Amino acid sequence: MVILREKKSLLSKIATSDQHGENSPYFDGWKAYDQDPFHPTQNPHGVIQMGLAENQLSHDLIERWIVENPKSSICTDVGVDLFKDIANFQDYHGMPEFREAIAKFMGKARGDRVRFDPDRIVMGGGATGASESLMFCLADPGDGFLVPTPYYPAFDRDLRWRTGIQLIPIVCKSSNDFKITKQALESAYDNAIKSNIKIKGLIIANPSNPLGTTMDRETLKTLIKFINDKDIHLVCDEIYAATVFNTPDFISISEVLQEMEQDPMNRINPELVHIIYSLSKDMGLPGFRVGILYSYNDGVVSSARKMSSFGLISTQTQHFLASILSDEVFVESFLIENSRRLAKRHKVFTQGLEEDGITCLASNAALYVWMDLRRLLKKPTFDEEMRLWRLIINEVKLNVSPGSSFHCVEPGWFRVCFANMDEQTVQIALNRIHIFVKKGKENETTTTKNKRSRPWSKDLRLSFSSRLYDETTMMSPRIMSPHSPFAHSPLVQART
Amino acid sequence: MVILREKKSLLSKIATSDQHGENSPYFDGWKAYDQDPFHPTQNPHGVIQMGLAENQLSHDLIERWIVENPKSSICTDVGVDLFKDIANFQDYHGMPEFREAIAKFMGKARGDRVRFDPDRIVMGGGATGASESLMFCLADPGDGFLVPTPYYPAFDRDLRWRTGIQLIPIVCKSSNDFKITKQALESAYDNAIKSNIKIKGLIIANPSNPLGTTMDRETLKTLIKFINDKDIHLVCDEIYAATVFNTPDFISISEVLQEMEQDPMNRINPELVHIIYSLSKDMGLPGFRVGILYSYNDGVVSSARKMSSFGLISTQTQHFLASILSDEVFVESFLIENSRRLAKRHKVFTQGLEEDGITCLASNAALYVWMDLRRLLKKPTFDEEMRLWRLIINEVKLNVSPGSSFHCVEPGWFRVCFANMDEQTVQIALNRIHIFVKKGKENETTTTKNKRSRPWSKDLRLSFSSRLYDETTMMSPRIMSPHSPFAHSPLVQART
Repeated sequence: MVILREKKSLLSKIATSDQHGENSPYFDGWKAYDQDPFHPTQNPHGVIQMGLAENQLSHDLIERWIVENPKSSICTDVGVDLFKDIANFQDYHGMPEFREAIAKFMGKARGDRVRFDPDRIVMGGGATGASESLMFCLADPGDGFLVPTPYYPAFDRDLRWRTGIQLIPIVCKSSNDFKITKQALESAYDNAIKSNIKIKGLIIANPSNPLGTTMDRETLKTLIKFINDKDIHLVCDEIYAATVFNTPDFISISEVLQEMEQDPMNRINPELVHIIYSLSKDMGLPGFRVGILYSYNDGVVSSARKMSSFGLISTQTQHFLASILSDEVFVESFLIENSRRLAKRHKVFTQGLEEDGITCLASNAALYVWMDLRRLLKKPTFDEEMRLWRLIINEVKLNVSPGSSFHCVEPGWFRVCFANMDEQTVQIALNRIHIFVKKGKENETTTTKNKRSRPWSKDLRLSFSSRLYDETTMMSPRIMSPHSPFAHSPLVQART
Repeated sequence: MVILREKKSLLSKIATSDQHGENSPYFDGWKAYDQDPFHPTQNPHGVIQMGLAENQLSHDLIERWIVENPKSSICTDVGVDLFKDIANFQDYHGMPEFREAIAKFMGKARGDRVRFDPDRIVMGGGATGASESLMFCLADPGDGFLVPTPYYPAFDRDLRWRTGIQLIPIVCKSSNDFKITKQALESAYDNAIKSNIKIKGLIIANPSNPLGTTMDRETLKTLIKFINDKDIHLVCDEIYAATVFNTPDFISISEVLQEMEQDPMNRINPELVHIIYSLSKDMGLPGFRVGILYSYNDGVVSSARKMSSFGLISTQTQHFLASILSDEVFVESFLIENSRRLAKRHKVFTQGLEEDGITCLASNAALYVWMDLRRLLKKPTFDEEMRLWRLIINEVKLNVSPGSSFHCVEPGWFRVCFANMDEQTVQIALNRIHIFVKKGKENETTTTKNKRSRPWSKDLRLSFSSRLYDETTMMSPRIMSPHSPFAHSPLVQART
């Protein structure tokens, strides 16, 4: 024991603490998936990954562009002339053409109603690195930032772990579709002050993760007024800006800031506003690690740029993206088509759920839905939510993410990603849910013959045997067409 | 003033402090270069960048490989099939094939005398990001690390700025070629303890930056014994491992650790040892941001891997590097040829300096020399060093880095990079130095006719008019051949 304690103290408090938050169910679900990943032919009974907010719907558009534009890569015979210069470039301002292309793309992804200045574009290692650097610039250890719940689980790692800041929840509830109210804002702020926490800012994600909703103009105005009144920062995570697939249109904080600044009566200080952006969701390129901090504050731009040394974007990638994002014809058609495909996928998935009586919070953006399974809980507790979550992971074999990992205050909500898989896998997932619900109803019928109905349950009843589902027997005609690549695969049988 | 103070307090102590160290002359020299960069035809009187440790000698080898291996890029028509999978890959363990290739390359760059385990390879955003993450894992704010002087100026930013640790110098001197002695080690450690600083480790760069020397086996053994006695960490920055171009061969800490572990009497704890690596110097790819932390400590591997989320390497780049580094025939011939070219360049440059009576510390590695200009100082002070440095930047128009920015305790040393330019530029730099020295001698002759010789000066005398040198009149026949691309350029005249 003594030896163990001594060993531990060789490392830092950061390394030996659990503040990275990776022991939350959000990450546990990924581990369950990793141990038994679904594959249509090689592992058809495996866990389907619905916990990963990836956009896999539009890569074919990028691939086609690549084949037509071999000069965009320094690793082709026609592009290699630039290899030496680009491989050597390490200025932390980034390649000028990259910053210009990103600034233009950010404008286009926000309906071209606002212009972004390339000189305010600061690079970071993904939104993860960019957000952490921003926190290092804005706050000292112990300082607090308000965050409306539910919020992205990895904020705990990205914003808090190494910086030592605190995240103070603003409680949002389903009664008004989890919208942030002035009252909830003020109350969270006042409570923090009472607890002697110095509040340095407010962090929002718009479009929201995990809700998939966008904020309206009035709400954004309220937030800008609030942070100006308190003289604190506003950090807007807009990494899902171009995933908006339905009305209302996306309104960026930059647009509202521009409007409000025009009226001097508003007394707006733009230096309090900072945007986090990325190409991981909007372009579907998480592996490329493109994180952007766009700040209206010169001091933050200057400090964060020095910090970008810790997570610069590979110049091989900067060069490629500068090329593709400078092609305005491509960018415009990509944004339209990507949005169209997301709308279609969202519709297929939510309608599939509705056929089984499962509803989601109405949403118009992002790569997931916020699924309401409150009626499936025996009691409205987080223990019950975890029980249901384990059932879904282990029996239905879908890795969805429980609301508790998003710090949601109401048990029974789950984030379900729908854009990180092909059409067939969506159908398999919907079928698994269908059988899950059907079995529940059958059991319910049997149960209610003997017992009275439980008050927490209205029109869904679920229960499970521990038997693994046999995908070959559960497939509906709509997916088991003879053209299905795994319809006749011997591998399907090999794993039963 | 009040408004200014208030504004400042909106940002963090990190953002408003000067601990990033970028106000050192090391970075100032870069700025001087940026304002007036040399170009053979477009700006022949500009500042030649000799402050940047880049390896530009072997890119042609990589370029040739690229043309022959189009599948190594996901942005070619034959490689694009993998685009979607690779663009989506964001596991912070890194691509398995990348880690394997890096581990193998690290072995080859160390003479294949030691094997590296791919599971201990942790990615970081360049050596910069990897080193900072290691500090976050090992130490709490206020903790100290011993570092032998002179040391890499950006350590102040990379290791100290955001982590809050302290760097405690171990004084090394020219009397024994700046070698680290047990006495200096113990003395620095004892002084720190007396000042109530908790020492968490020792940081060395081997090959050294700025010395260009490698450490011998006995020294490395002494260091391993020392850190085991004190139960502190040993961080070895080996980012110049494959730049060793002359005997003695490079000996990695991993090799000595392996040897010492074999004798249980040594009671060695390998968990105290960590290596920082990179491809920026050895392969000449700083823009690709490949930083590697290799730790023998499982706790560090696990924590640092979580931290690598802040600075992952673009998967486009991981895939390319996995391909090229897996080609063992290429890697072996690259390492040999790169080393041969560095040896040649080093010889040309140091012999050129010697012709003018300028000596450098004898070195066998890296991309720079440690030039001894002590005799040119009127007094052995750092003010004098700065005066000489300004003369070299502003009059000779060479951006070299003064020893003070490397925390050297003896004034008069300068780091001069020789591998970030072509042969012609090296000759122009040598010519500028030649004229500088010659003018100094001429002035000296005039001066000594009237005054007695100054005691600080032996065989070099320098002084300058503020007139800009006219490159067209100073070029020696060896570079002003009729084939020189800028021999007859009207631009050469246009800027006089």
